[in-house]
Amino acid sequence: MGNAFGQLFRISTWGESHGGGVGVVLDGCPPCVRITAEEIQVELDRRRPGQSKIVTPRQEADQVEILSGVFEGKTLGTPIMMWVRNKDARPEAYAEMAVKFRPSHADFTYETKYGIRDPHGGGRSSARETVGRVAAGAIARKILQESYGVEIVAYVKQIQEIIAEISIDIVQREAVEANIVRCPDAAAAESMIERVESIRSAGDSVGGIVECVVRGAPVGWGSPVFDRLEADLAKAMLSLPACKGFDVGSGFESVSLTGLQHNDAFRSDEEGQVRTTTNRSGGVQGGISNGMPIYFRTVFKPTATVMHEQETVNQDFENTSLKGRGRHDPCVLPRAVPIVEAMTALVLMDHAMRDSAQCGG
Amino acid sequence: MGNAFGQLFRISTWGESHGGGVGVVLDGCPPCVRITAEEIQVELDRRRPGQSKIVTPRQEADQVEILSGVFEGKTLGTPIMMWVRNKDARPEAYAEMAVKFRPSHADFTYETKYGIRDPHGGGRSSARETVGRVAAGAIARKILQESYGVEIVAYVKQIQEIIAEISIDIVQREAVEANIVRCPDAAAAESMIERVESIRSAGDSVGGIVECVVRGAPVGWGSPVFDRLEADLAKAMLSLPACKGFDVGSGFESVSLTGLQHNDAFRSDEEGQVRTTTNRSGGVQGGISNGMPIYFRTVFKPTATVMHEQETVNQDFENTSLKGRGRHDPCVLPRAVPIVEAMTALVLMDHAMRDSAQCGG
Amino acid sequence: MGNAFGQLFRISTWGESHGGGVGVVLDGCPPCVRITAEEIQVELDRRRPGQSKIVTPRQEADQVEILSGVFEGKTLGTPIMMWVRNKDARPEAYAEMAVKFRPSHADFTYETKYGIRDPHGGGRSSARETVGRVAAGAIARKILQESYGVEIVAYVKQIQEIIAEISIDIVQREAVEANIVRCPDAAAAESMIERVESIRSAGDSVGGIVECVVRGAPVGWGSPVFDRLEADLAKAMLSLPACKGFDVGSGFESVSLTGLQHNDAFRSDEEGQVRTTTNRSGGVQGGISNGMPIYFRTVFKPTATVMHEQETVNQDFENTSLKGRGRHDPCVLPRAVPIVEAMTALVLMDHAMRDSAQCGG
Amino acid sequence: MGNAFGQLFRISTWGESHGGGVGVVLDGCPPCVRITAEEIQVELDRRRPGQSKIVTPRQEADQVEILSGVFEGKTLGTPIMMWVRNKDARPEAYAEMAVKFRPSHADFTYETKYGIRDPHGGGRSSARETVGRVAAGAIARKILQESYGVEIVAYVKQIQEIIAEISIDIVQREAVEANIVRCPDAAAAESMIERVESIRSAGDSVGGIVECVVRGAPVGWGSPVFDRLEADLAKAMLSLPACKGFDVGSGFESVSLTGLQHNDAFRSDEEGQVRTTTNRSGGVQGGISNGMPIYFRTVFKPTATVMHEQETVNQDFENTSLKGRGRHDPCVLPRAVPIVEAMTALVLMDHAMRDSAQCGG
Repeated sequence: MGNAFGQLFRISTWGESHGGGVGVVLDGCPPCVRITAEEIQVELDRRRPGQSKIVTPRQEADQVEILSGVFEGKTLGTPIMMWVRNKDARPEAYAEMAVKFRPSHADFTYETKYGIRDPHGGGRSSARETVGRVAAGAIARKILQESYGVEIVAYVKQIQEIIAEISIDIVQREAVEANIVRCPDAAAAESMIERVESIRSAGDSVGGIVECVVRGAPVGWGSPVFDRLEADLAKAMLSLPACKGFDVGSGFESVSLTGLQHNDAFRSDEEGQVRTTTNRSGGVQGGISNGMPIYFRTVFKPTATVMHEQETVNQDFENTSLKGRGRHDPCVLPRAVPIVEAMTALVLMDHAMRDSAQCGG
Repeated sequence: MGNAFGQLFRISTWGESHGGGVGVVLDGCPPCVRITAEEIQVELDRRRPGQSKIVTPRQEADQVEILSGVFEGKTLGTPIMMWVRNKDARPEAYAEMAVKFRPSHADFTYETKYGIRDPHGGGRSSARETVGRVAAGAIARKILQESYGVEIVAYVKQIQEIIAEISIDIVQREAVEANIVRCPDAAAAESMIERVESIRSAGDSVGGIVECVVRGAPVGWGSPVFDRLEADLAKAMLSLPACKGFDVGSGFESVSLTGLQHNDAFRSDEEGQVRTTTNRSGGVQGGISNGMPIYFRTVFKPTATVMHEQETVNQDFENTSLKGRGRHDPCVLPRAVPIVEAMTALVLMDHAMRDSAQCGG
Repeated sequence: MGNAFGQLFRISTWGESHGGGVGVVLDGCPPCVRITAEEIQVELDRRRPGQSKIVTPRQEADQVEILSGVFEGKTLGTPIMMWVRNKDARPEAYAEMAVKFRPSHADFTYETKYGIRDPHGGGRSSARETVGRVAAGAIARKILQESYGVEIVAYVKQIQEIIAEISIDIVQREAVEANIVRCPDAAAAESMIERVESIRSAGDSVGGIVECVVRGAPVGWGSPVFDRLEADLAKAMLSLPACKGFDVGSGFESVSLTGLQHNDAFRSDEEGQVRTTTNRSGGVQGGISNGMPIYFRTVFKPTATVMHEQETVNQDFENTSLKGRGRHDPCVLPRAVPIVEAMTALVLMDHAMRDSAQCGG
Repeated sequence: MGNAFGQLFRISTWGESHGGGVGVVLDGCPPCVRITAEEIQVELDRRRPGQSKIVTPRQEADQVEILSGVFEGKTLGTPIMMWVRNKDARPEAYAEMAVKFRPSHADFTYETKYGIRDPHGGGRSSARETVGRVAAGAIARKILQESYGVEIVAYVKQIQEIIAEISIDIVQREAVEANIVRCPDAAAAESMIERVESIRSAGDSVGGIVECVVRGAPVGWGSPVFDRLEADLAKAMLSLPACKGFDVGSGFESVSLTGLQHNDAFRSDEEGQVRTTTNRSGGVQGGISNGMPIYFRTVFKPTATVMHEQETVNQDFENTSLKGRGRHDPCVLPRAVPIVEAMTALVLMDHAMRDSAQCGG
């Protein structure tokens, strides 16, 4: 239960970190969209482990295979099944994990809820589950771009106290991809990379903030009440492993402002185009996009796997300790960037279709 | 579209700020639950306008009527329809609003998306829509308490720079209800009340942070992937009017910690009960409750209606200005407290039922 | 649970046969649709008891009230809440029913499943629950007619061995409404009316077949697999009280034909319009409308309430007997006609919106 | 859209008749259920082509692979992905079909709705799509049997005018499997086999009626209104390729009875067990199972592919003709039997979980 997302552009992901593979069924995709495995692979390559010295060295090719729903390079309007095989199983590395609960992982809750868990890694809590999201997100992204002119750019905004200076109005993917930490502020990026390397050397880990901006969304996506655009984005982000928070527009900083300071004045330009002079609303008003850039922040906690002895309990609920070993991802942030973009694309595509259904938009 | 929430314990709210009334249909409620209109009214009274000098003076009795689904004080297992009538219509107050878009309200987005809006106030974007949520939440809260021993307490944590000191382990509703700002730290409460009064006198408004803690939830509520408990809570909170952000456990503060600092060690006590020695996870690991208190924060922006002239555009997209007048809610925080609790109860009740369905929990 | 229908044009009905009233929340209705209470009342009047000598004499005005979602005669795109009050409660009539289970009613299953039931009548199993369906269906019908030119006509096709001769290509509502049994074959109608009167005099009841035809639906409504148009229609019909079966096109009669006899040949006319020369498919192929008239049959069993002593058990599961008394509906068929049309309209409207969302249709 | 079924025990099927394969993601399966690929294969083998002389000779091994959700023979509570590869592609056989619409197939509606279709066979309209349903149904069936003692038996009831005599109270799977037509009345079976062989020789096809009985379901599965057990069964059946109708209990035959004749009297036996003396209700009253055998009939039209020249149009909507060639399934009935059972199991399992969630059943 809970393995599907979206109402009309709907994905169902499947697969454990270990086992045959991980994948997704995308139902509801419009027909006649040109899409190739290569285009999807571009996004998966941004997500995969082993792409740089500051992320986990787990080597997986993660070559996507499309088994249905696409014919001669075009979508059929039928379910698109995409998957990557699991290749890198090293069961011996997991012997201790199989009997002890790793602190701040899902081992304890899975075992207690289900009475069973796959002891070879994190099962469905693994970041590997996000492969299917990114694959489906690549298709959503393409449709949004081609049919609506929507651009989605996410990047690392903060690691510890290092905060990047980035303009949401102009930041481009090229700048994001210019360095391995995916922070488009070059100076901040350098500091971040150093910091992550030093954290990794210490066998420790670190989290941070990913910011995402959407430019070009029309007025009218989103719903007034439960399915406000920001509510669906919040759910999308908090559904990501290690995500601990979300805010949109002025977000938590709005606490220091008064209404008069916070309100976004409407102004009409020469062409009669209505815009707001500021954008503390974050591009969403009353749950519906207002034509301004949509931007929001998500915070990811430091990875739970560290190379230190830590107190925990075993499967018999006896006190013991456990030391992380083997591969280790000191910072998920660079790999979180394409995942945040994918989830954003999925939310927007779903709302584009819902708006089309109800309002003919 | 988007006016329903929950999968098994499912609410559909209806009603505009002006019109016949506002209400809710609750589908999926377990049968034979004892519930009275009076118990529901208690929560509605905490939500309604006019209850103190620091909230909007709009006087509405908001007497709930139960039209179906309850027979001789017990639920039938059939849809429970509850509503309150709208009484306080003053159409003349809205003449200017009907032709000008209020800044940072939903007027512009509704009009553009739907090609129509109810000009008598905020329509579905009005805080009045939350009446149905609170009514249904009162039933969820009762079941959670009686069947599972779950306690839910929310309170005002911060207004501008005034931050309350509150222990999530012991805070009780009595302390929350002890003052009109619903902040259980008496000293901070006093400062907050002064601040809100001064803001109100200036015709301005202010936001703040509501924190919520859930104690007594068993291990096992929530799902691994998209319907993680924190994801559904995030969606629930961001679906509230004026909410701009959510974080759980360590939240945005996790950015400054390393993994070693952040991890929650498991320890078993004498009775073999597993607990974590810290609770930066916020009571949720891998999307599933781990038996520790669940706690999270939500930020509400300052109310958009202020008693000052502001720049905006009219329905013909011409530049103009608009001054708020009439009633004015300088701070939604005290009234947001019961609404946050209601949404929390709805999310938990839904997941309790889902766990029961799949895992027999 | 199970009190909502539709994915995009979605209704949630509420209310028991006794209690405050019965109604519906319609979510997802397109905005700016002109609709009045009077237009909805027309359909409700066709559904209500007491309209002729051959249906139940229960006198209810069933005046619809629209509490939300419509402003100055136009839909807002927000939830439309419509209801009728319950007026005709006669609790004393139900004293015996409260302790004995009526044969072939829902009393026994409700009591066993829920541990409780409203003893004043059938609760949610009452035909009164369909008020909300008919009200929402009236809106769907209007949109289908105005936006797509779709016509929906249902009528009584058979009562016992009396079978009407009706052409699905030309039958009109006027002919259906020309007599109280709603059978557009005047000769058959006369026999049917006589039959029902004679059955009523005997304190007995009778069922029959309602046929429904949809003309003007474009090619492309429906989905290939689970949400085939005929599957959603079948569910819609079997969700009606007393409905025991459904077939579409050639239906159960297809059992006697071979493939060669059954297949519908495609032919193109002078304008290049493709039609089939026969229509055994019933207007649906592969789950999707093919532009030909859609037609199907539904069978309603004889009403369970009869004025005779029948064997049953009481609430303590002891053998006893029970004799129906008071009002008595000898034949639900004439009143089922508008209900079948309403459910048909709801299914089609939902699929029209789904097609629009995915295929831009 | 429309490729998922079930609310809690939910399947999403994917795959075309041609392409990489066909499969299913099953979400919501309870954890710790023992299941093997071999158990699933048993049902798939009953469904696959080429198993006897009276069904299509298409030879496919249809070996199921389980890629996720099962660990060491037990379900994990996570999505179970199962699939079979496509092996038997003969694209040359489809050249003519690619440009001409086969009569009474989905070619025309798919092409018009989506603007594209997989020309190599029926795509999602192919009976091959049901592989995933049968695989997931095998798991549902096992849980129903082991946890609730529920037995599901379907069989061929009628082919043309040959009607089998079968007692729903005692019919067993062994008798069904005793002959290739899957009709447990040996004499009727013999006639049916002869008939199908003769039809096949004539290059023609034939349909028929499959009846299904469920024994051992407790009182209480199903919901009062839209999700009545019979409504969900009707949808499940009408979602099958070639299905044209469904009736439950007395079904269409109820038209000839009066209420007094039709009602099922309740009687309590020595143990205080309530049963009905007749079962015209078909085991369902008010949408909820009443503890009696549930039985229903489904009619399948004759297969559309016949080895004769038929009139049709081509992709340019010009009149032409087309003759079926190659493999040819003269009668889908024997293979429909396990599919009907699978869909029945899916509906019941879903309602068992829903009842457990709401009523603790």
